[in-house]
Amino acid sequence: MPLDSPKDPKIAAKAGLDPQNFALANCIRALSIDAVNAANSGHPGAPMGMADAATVLFRNHLKFDAKNPNWPDRDRFVLSNGHASMLLYSLLHLTGYEDMTLEQIRAFRQWGSITAGHPEYGHAKGVETTTGPLGQGLATAVGMALAERRLAAEFGDDLVDHHTYVFTGDGCLQEGIGQEAISLAGHLGLGKLIVLYDDNDITIDGPTSISFSEDIPARFQACGWHVQQCDGHDGKALDAAIAAAKAETGKPSLIAMKTVIGFGSPNKAGTYSVHGSPLGKDEAALTREAIGWPHDPFVIPEELLAEWRKIGTRGAADREAWEARLKDRSADVRAEFQRRLTGTLPEAYEDALKAARDALFAEPKKAATRKASQMALEPLTAVLPEMIGGSADLTGSNLTRVKAVDSQYTRAAPGRYIGYGVREFGMAAAMNGINLHGGFISYGGTFLVFSDYARNAIRLSALMGVGTIFVMTHDSIGLGEDGPTHQPIEHLASLRAIPNLTVLRPADTVETLEAWDIAIRNRHVPSLLALSRQDVPQLRLEAGDENLTAKGAYVIRQFGDGRDVTLIGTGTEVALAVQAAEALHAEGMSVAVVSMPSWELFEAQPEDYRRATLGDAPRIAVEAAGKFGWTRYVASEDDVIGMTGFGASAPIERLYQEFGITKEAIVARAKALVGR
Amino acid sequence: MPLDSPKDPKIAAKAGLDPQNFALANCIRALSIDAVNAANSGHPGAPMGMADAATVLFRNHLKFDAKNPNWPDRDRFVLSNGHASMLLYSLLHLTGYEDMTLEQIRAFRQWGSITAGHPEYGHAKGVETTTGPLGQGLATAVGMALAERRLAAEFGDDLVDHHTYVFTGDGCLQEGIGQEAISLAGHLGLGKLIVLYDDNDITIDGPTSISFSEDIPARFQACGWHVQQCDGHDGKALDAAIAAAKAETGKPSLIAMKTVIGFGSPNKAGTYSVHGSPLGKDEAALTREAIGWPHDPFVIPEELLAEWRKIGTRGAADREAWEARLKDRSADVRAEFQRRLTGTLPEAYEDALKAARDALFAEPKKAATRKASQMALEPLTAVLPEMIGGSADLTGSNLTRVKAVDSQYTRAAPGRYIGYGVREFGMAAAMNGINLHGGFISYGGTFLVFSDYARNAIRLSALMGVGTIFVMTHDSIGLGEDGPTHQPIEHLASLRAIPNLTVLRPADTVETLEAWDIAIRNRHVPSLLALSRQDVPQLRLEAGDENLTAKGAYVIRQFGDGRDVTLIGTGTEVALAVQAAEALHAEGMSVAVVSMPSWELFEAQPEDYRRATLGDAPRIAVEAAGKFGWTRYVASEDDVIGMTGFGASAPIERLYQEFGITKEAIVARAKALVGR
Repeated sequence: MPLDSPKDPKIAAKAGLDPQNFALANCIRALSIDAVNAANSGHPGAPMGMADAATVLFRNHLKFDAKNPNWPDRDRFVLSNGHASMLLYSLLHLTGYEDMTLEQIRAFRQWGSITAGHPEYGHAKGVETTTGPLGQGLATAVGMALAERRLAAEFGDDLVDHHTYVFTGDGCLQEGIGQEAISLAGHLGLGKLIVLYDDNDITIDGPTSISFSEDIPARFQACGWHVQQCDGHDGKALDAAIAAAKAETGKPSLIAMKTVIGFGSPNKAGTYSVHGSPLGKDEAALTREAIGWPHDPFVIPEELLAEWRKIGTRGAADREAWEARLKDRSADVRAEFQRRLTGTLPEAYEDALKAARDALFAEPKKAATRKASQMALEPLTAVLPEMIGGSADLTGSNLTRVKAVDSQYTRAAPGRYIGYGVREFGMAAAMNGINLHGGFISYGGTFLVFSDYARNAIRLSALMGVGTIFVMTHDSIGLGEDGPTHQPIEHLASLRAIPNLTVLRPADTVETLEAWDIAIRNRHVPSLLALSRQDVPQLRLEAGDENLTAKGAYVIRQFGDGRDVTLIGTGTEVALAVQAAEALHAEGMSVAVVSMPSWELFEAQPEDYRRATLGDAPRIAVEAAGKFGWTRYVASEDDVIGMTGFGASAPIERLYQEFGITKEAIVARAKALVGR
Repeated sequence: MPLDSPKDPKIAAKAGLDPQNFALANCIRALSIDAVNAANSGHPGAPMGMADAATVLFRNHLKFDAKNPNWPDRDRFVLSNGHASMLLYSLLHLTGYEDMTLEQIRAFRQWGSITAGHPEYGHAKGVETTTGPLGQGLATAVGMALAERRLAAEFGDDLVDHHTYVFTGDGCLQEGIGQEAISLAGHLGLGKLIVLYDDNDITIDGPTSISFSEDIPARFQACGWHVQQCDGHDGKALDAAIAAAKAETGKPSLIAMKTVIGFGSPNKAGTYSVHGSPLGKDEAALTREAIGWPHDPFVIPEELLAEWRKIGTRGAADREAWEARLKDRSADVRAEFQRRLTGTLPEAYEDALKAARDALFAEPKKAATRKASQMALEPLTAVLPEMIGGSADLTGSNLTRVKAVDSQYTRAAPGRYIGYGVREFGMAAAMNGINLHGGFISYGGTFLVFSDYARNAIRLSALMGVGTIFVMTHDSIGLGEDGPTHQPIEHLASLRAIPNLTVLRPADTVETLEAWDIAIRNRHVPSLLALSRQDVPQLRLEAGDENLTAKGAYVIRQFGDGRDVTLIGTGTEVALAVQAAEALHAEGMSVAVVSMPSWELFEAQPEDYRRATLGDAPRIAVEAAGKFGWTRYVASEDDVIGMTGFGASAPIERLYQEFGITKEAIVARAKALVGR
């Protein structure tokens, strides 16, 4: 391959270490410079600095087939420092992903393009997860690696055997979630997880020395990782390091690459000014000279493009061999494998669901909804081997562990239950990764109040459209003595405010089972189940197969004809609303009680159903949480029987009494509203 | 001191290492067992395991005076594993904090007591910060240690020279925020920060080996800490370790103590069953025997109590000497020191504020509100040496750095600007700690979308009533090309839902200055400023000294007499509302435009003001964010010109157009509402 010599002697020296790799990497550098310049917005520094490593990885190691981006046994590549998106888009274009045309590269960061500022899952093929919020790519990749091991254990190494590669910068390692991911991966010995760290000494604010001086290799080592260091611009050294990382199968691997941010730019390389700003026309021209790139913007010489396209099809033979192995398996195994990967539910599921429903109607149960959740999980997980559970060290409280999902996921054996440790954020991102990998429905628990810790990963599941299931127990002041630090107040509202997330707060055993059914079927919308610590009676007593929770809200009790008032409750407060309705009815009023387990599902109903359910009579909402947002359904926050501030530490009965979430308060407000 | 011999030979062996310390520690163990049993709720295991270390610390090292809990130069003690609250309450009672009576201990976790399930700041004296949400105690303590160094640099070591001690369990170290705190403390060489790690091998779910196998001492070492390991039940070893930690002044210190959770309990020690459940009556009796404690529940023998009370006054002489030193300082220094600690604003503040206001009216400016924020900070920080700023590695974007707050806080010199690194959660908790320490008004910046990462620390500032100032820029889709991962949608609603937090979204330079004024004065309510990336015109042009932002909402423009419609806008959308109002007025309609920078402040206004401001005409709200919550002020979400889903990556103009947040959309909705 002919090569223009870099003008800059230092760059020439680096290029000389592996000239062909350097030339291929220049394609990435050039496209990144040009696209960011064209958008007049973006981050050229990281793509320029990591281009050499990316080239080595795609050229010699990454198992992929650009023409078959969804080949299940492909290696996963996660760009955790998502602001370096042009690195990924360049690679996808160069290797020949069909949707990643040069027009898309030219339309970087423009409306309607698949080349968003940060890589967005579902836009471009080859983007395995949305990244940008730092640290989460790494934590999501841990989930992918977890999934790979489990799926391999189920279906065999001949069908499932791939690596997960992660590129990460300093930011991902400064974020706490980065450490959660590192610690969990090291603990579980995820040997096929390989992280390449872009150690360039620069963050947005300036040199990392402003805020960051730890010994990163030593930290990874302390967490049980295999650690190497190398020059991030030396193609041969990188190649050897990746090979060594693959050879180490008992530990995840870190390759700390010393790199120069904005490598190639004569005036900006190694400075923070190249982190998040375009090079500009002049510096781009100087950079072209310095790296020996005489081509016009967006022009990739044919020979280099051809070489890259060859790289893009390098994995075709592997893929064909894999397909042959799949064909060799029994029809049953093939069908089950396909079912798992496409996320189709087995026939046995409907039967198990119906049996569980029928049992509840046959023998109604008083139970905390967290317990009802465990009761639902028992039969459903028994027929859904794809369900993989866990908890952020609150198993006994979240009740996420059941018979079928009991085997601990350990270093020695990848079971179905993951002890995520006290790492809510890392757990949530890993669950997203497990689901993104394919083959699984991942769920995991913590307390609702600690949804705060995991919040941005919940948001990302909603943004990506990934059906992660968040099990959040201890969902109100009803948890009692642990007090205000543990009592969610604003959490239901703040979660309902997230687009594309289904928040479910079931009222009893039946609604909890229905909520699980909804969550399990929702493969493209995440679900969050808010569950109680305290017992509630079973309110749904009438047998039937319709999932009423799926309507979001419905009339659960009607007292008298017509309506003087409508009481809307959620979760544990539906029973309270029923009690109040009984009292009001005893005084001659007609009352409808609406159970509203999910605002989002209710909003998706036809308008006439919504209108009929809510009715024209005055409405009162009852929820042991902050009142924020309820004015969507009631006239004023005065009509919400709920919390106006934080909770307190005391036994549950006292708390409901002191905070005025009582039958008497509902009755009094109802009377005031209808003028009695 | 007479000692009953422990029955259990293993315990006797440990007790023999330092019998007096052991006897004193038994007071903590006994009270913790009894209080948790009485409440039938709580966590006895950690207090029992850490009692020996706590005794050594309070007995020999901690500088405090129980009769003067607010002595400014006291050492700070933070129980980061807040579920061990009975450890702290026991210590406060034993050492003679006047409010911590035996009745309060008996009322552990009951309504109205100061002994909440987790330590709540502001309830009991001696509780330096609210803990319970894991990892945050440690991160808050880092802030306290940061503050101590800065205040000492300002006022001299003779007035400010104290340590910050932290007790932490496994959970705090598994949480990502723990690592953020460790990394920052190590980077800045906070030599007076000493952490005692309760290394007991147990978490709620079982042995730590389920999820946690890293080499903690090595991780701390990698982060620049001084590290020791010792037996956590050996009083003499602990004493030596703490002494050595104090002697190391260039690095923060970790003492990893091997302990037995529930130490003393014959059947439950060393198991997770003692973590979060009462021992019960029988096991309590067995434990009493095992540790040699023949006393009835809640009874502390006089001699031991007397010894503890002596410990409680041990610091009195130190305090008196400190007071003498303070008296020796000049009246000016004394006055300024007192002013700083009481959080009073200096006279110069009002002048600086007025000058800044007048300048804006004299020469109106078009500016992004983040820029307006920087313009406000310039003069205000110049007269407020207590203001200490920072950013989570987005200084150039948040514009939090100004001339007076420019000196970098480094290991060598504690300046006024802290490079928190990409650690939003750790930053927020550290800012809380700086404010809790006293002497400072702490502010720090990140993007609004990343309030998600810091969310539970924002919540804790609200729960504690600490006036931390969160500067959150890039507050809408208006940030443009970075795309949906970076564009806040649900964040304003989800922050407005938090009780006791003032969310401010100013519309222009004047409102931004007013918002800063509100935030600075709010020493017991945290403030969050949502600021724009993009420019907005100055809308407030009429000179005057009244802070209209403090009203939460006010009529900023009136077109015509009366009102056909009211347009309510916040932040950057107020200008859009004004444009729409002009267009509607041109068509003959009377329109009031209400600027609503803060919902919380508006709700605190008298009802007649609120009614007059909102008016009786149909209302439309305009905000480039999710619509959730706006039904508090408008009839339906159809009357909100805002977002219904996530954003996209594109230039700003295109985004507002595509998402329908336009003058035309407002005009059309207004016409529909008034039937034109």
